[in-house]
Amino acid sequence: MTAIITLTTDFGLRDGYVGAMKGVILSIAADARIVDLTHDIEPQNIRQALFVLAQATPYFPAGTIHVAVVDPGVGTDRRPLLVTTPRACYVGPDNGIFSAALSEEGAQAWELDRPAYWLPRLSRTFHGRDLFAPVAAHLARGIPPEQLGHPIADPVRLAWPQPVRHADGHLSGEIIYVDRFGNLISNIPAAWLAGHRWRGHIAGHAAPIVAAYGEGAVAALIGLIGSNDTVEIAVRNGNAARHLGVGIGETLDLWPIS
Amino acid sequence: MTAIITLTTDFGLRDGYVGAMKGVILSIAADARIVDLTHDIEPQNIRQALFVLAQATPYFPAGTIHVAVVDPGVGTDRRPLLVTTPRACYVGPDNGIFSAALSEEGAQAWELDRPAYWLPRLSRTFHGRDLFAPVAAHLARGIPPEQLGHPIADPVRLAWPQPVRHADGHLSGEIIYVDRFGNLISNIPAAWLAGHRWRGHIAGHAAPIVAAYGEGAVAALIGLIGSNDTVEIAVRNGNAARHLGVGIGETLDLWPIS
Amino acid sequence: MTAIITLTTDFGLRDGYVGAMKGVILSIAADARIVDLTHDIEPQNIRQALFVLAQATPYFPAGTIHVAVVDPGVGTDRRPLLVTTPRACYVGPDNGIFSAALSEEGAQAWELDRPAYWLPRLSRTFHGRDLFAPVAAHLARGIPPEQLGHPIADPVRLAWPQPVRHADGHLSGEIIYVDRFGNLISNIPAAWLAGHRWRGHIAGHAAPIVAAYGEGAVAALIGLIGSNDTVEIAVRNGNAARHLGVGIGETLDLWPIS
Repeated sequence: MTAIITLTTDFGLRDGYVGAMKGVILSIAADARIVDLTHDIEPQNIRQALFVLAQATPYFPAGTIHVAVVDPGVGTDRRPLLVTTPRACYVGPDNGIFSAALSEEGAQAWELDRPAYWLPRLSRTFHGRDLFAPVAAHLARGIPPEQLGHPIADPVRLAWPQPVRHADGHLSGEIIYVDRFGNLISNIPAAWLAGHRWRGHIAGHAAPIVAAYGEGAVAALIGLIGSNDTVEIAVRNGNAARHLGVGIGETLDLWPIS
Repeated sequence: MTAIITLTTDFGLRDGYVGAMKGVILSIAADARIVDLTHDIEPQNIRQALFVLAQATPYFPAGTIHVAVVDPGVGTDRRPLLVTTPRACYVGPDNGIFSAALSEEGAQAWELDRPAYWLPRLSRTFHGRDLFAPVAAHLARGIPPEQLGHPIADPVRLAWPQPVRHADGHLSGEIIYVDRFGNLISNIPAAWLAGHRWRGHIAGHAAPIVAAYGEGAVAALIGLIGSNDTVEIAVRNGNAARHLGVGIGETLDLWPIS
Repeated sequence: MTAIITLTTDFGLRDGYVGAMKGVILSIAADARIVDLTHDIEPQNIRQALFVLAQATPYFPAGTIHVAVVDPGVGTDRRPLLVTTPRACYVGPDNGIFSAALSEEGAQAWELDRPAYWLPRLSRTFHGRDLFAPVAAHLARGIPPEQLGHPIADPVRLAWPQPVRHADGHLSGEIIYVDRFGNLISNIPAAWLAGHRWRGHIAGHAAPIVAAYGEGAVAALIGLIGSNDTVEIAVRNGNAARHLGVGIGETLDLWPIS
């Protein structure tokens, strides 16, 4: 069975850094299937990578190895990390980027501390190439976690803003991601909307909650259940983030329609 | 024989949407070879995707499965579509994106209506992941079109602007695509130029028709036969679209040189 | 053994040009593994491609075939080139893009002159698709260089700016690349720093040489050994190129600290 290795970085695609990582992986695990998740994470934006990983990785086959390198602490004493879950492995810096995986049932964190499985020379600036890519490739070849590091109990976890159900029945949450289309993705789960119709409010604007983009008038602000099962604010065939001039951290309120 | 699945979307590469589609495909068809055609289609620009597909897909091996998701109507009653041709399959929304494939000899359109071949839960916003990716993967595994949908006779087709041969011998056409280099690609076929030398006119500027970029002076406006066998307007080592301040829809006239 | 073919171009990813190349490769060598190195080389910037290739290709397995198409002279009499080294093959235009490979021990240049191994029709604008992709695919299938062209002794080589050790002990070099993070990468080799501590000067600013990004204060200008083993100037969690307003060609001086 050929292993799949996905890559998520803030390296962009113009510099050849990603190419070097792929070369390292294929040099160690010639059969590995490499899949680019994204390399366009904003430089040093760990939370963005965390969101993208949480959204995309559940769709991969069991046994997939996910490498994520958004690593402002490279070259310091931040630990190199492996997270194993019943479904997948995650390889990257210990800076919270794998917080979602760590919250899964059965997750285990490992500090990677066996240089025998890294490139012979470890640079101080590019552990993606010198450490994480080789470790992922060795995992793909079947080397078990025990040989690559030792279990740790205190990996870095990032807290995620939590939505609130208020006593008066209204819900409030926060925009936690803005996608390429300018859709404002909140942390209010779809399940909380059951039983009522709702009206959204964001940045002084009303946004009726509809079932699909196509139910909004073109250029009108709407809310709907997005593909990751939370409420998102959109402008049909337009860009809600630009339309409202808001982004991550903005409050979203939902009021039940009686 | 391992199936090839190409992907063309307007999702960009920063959000993990494309990654989720790849995960779905590999979960169903572990051996499929996934090739990114492009994910940088301008949001909702169906015609741009149509042009890119028409240009690139003929170069793929017979049996390739092309998935294209530029889908402003997602979540409405626009139909999910499969187009089969003697050489390839096309999977995506029924909005005209496959007009070029539909005009091929032997093309057949199918409405995809068998949820058994989709993900168990169909979101209202992301059929690329929940419907088109799984259908493509099932095609890759050998499931025939008959099991995935039923034939339809009225798929959406987009008209394409047609060039004109005038009675006075001159030709006129239209810019139908602007590429990354700023080359202005017209709909005037190379074959129409046989037998004469020509002089191009666009936006009040003359553009001599030459045989290769290298025959123009650096920074001079030229016309030549582009890689898809139509006339394109270029600036050697420069950007014709920026130079002229024009884009798609601009008229191009060619006059024979006696 | 499945051959690996890497692709480096200035085509960007929005136009389908890269997709067409992949289709051509897979049509000839169905088993080839295609790896994107980068397609975001600045249009016509041969030196940038040269740097990226020099940085990334050493990490690929022996036998890898590297295709690079940054080709302002396409359609003129610039020669199509193959460079073979003991470790790899390089296919692309003869314009200096393979200067690094040509300087390797045992490198041999070949002019590609056998149209039997190209697409049947050679456009004047897109040799990436019509000539270089097919030649790479034939190499992947085991066709030897002798069948694809004939040896030449005079391939184009680009000179690279050389750093200098001055009589007073100080070193001077030049910025030769600016990466996505705004790191200013110089040509001063790490080995020259042995035995002293150093202080960098660039564009009127001091930059202490530290061991890792994390040792600089956030937003402070620093120098360090980069991932390709030369001195680079960075701003921790910031963008040195923007901070200083400088780019390729800028002088970097290093003074020993007594």
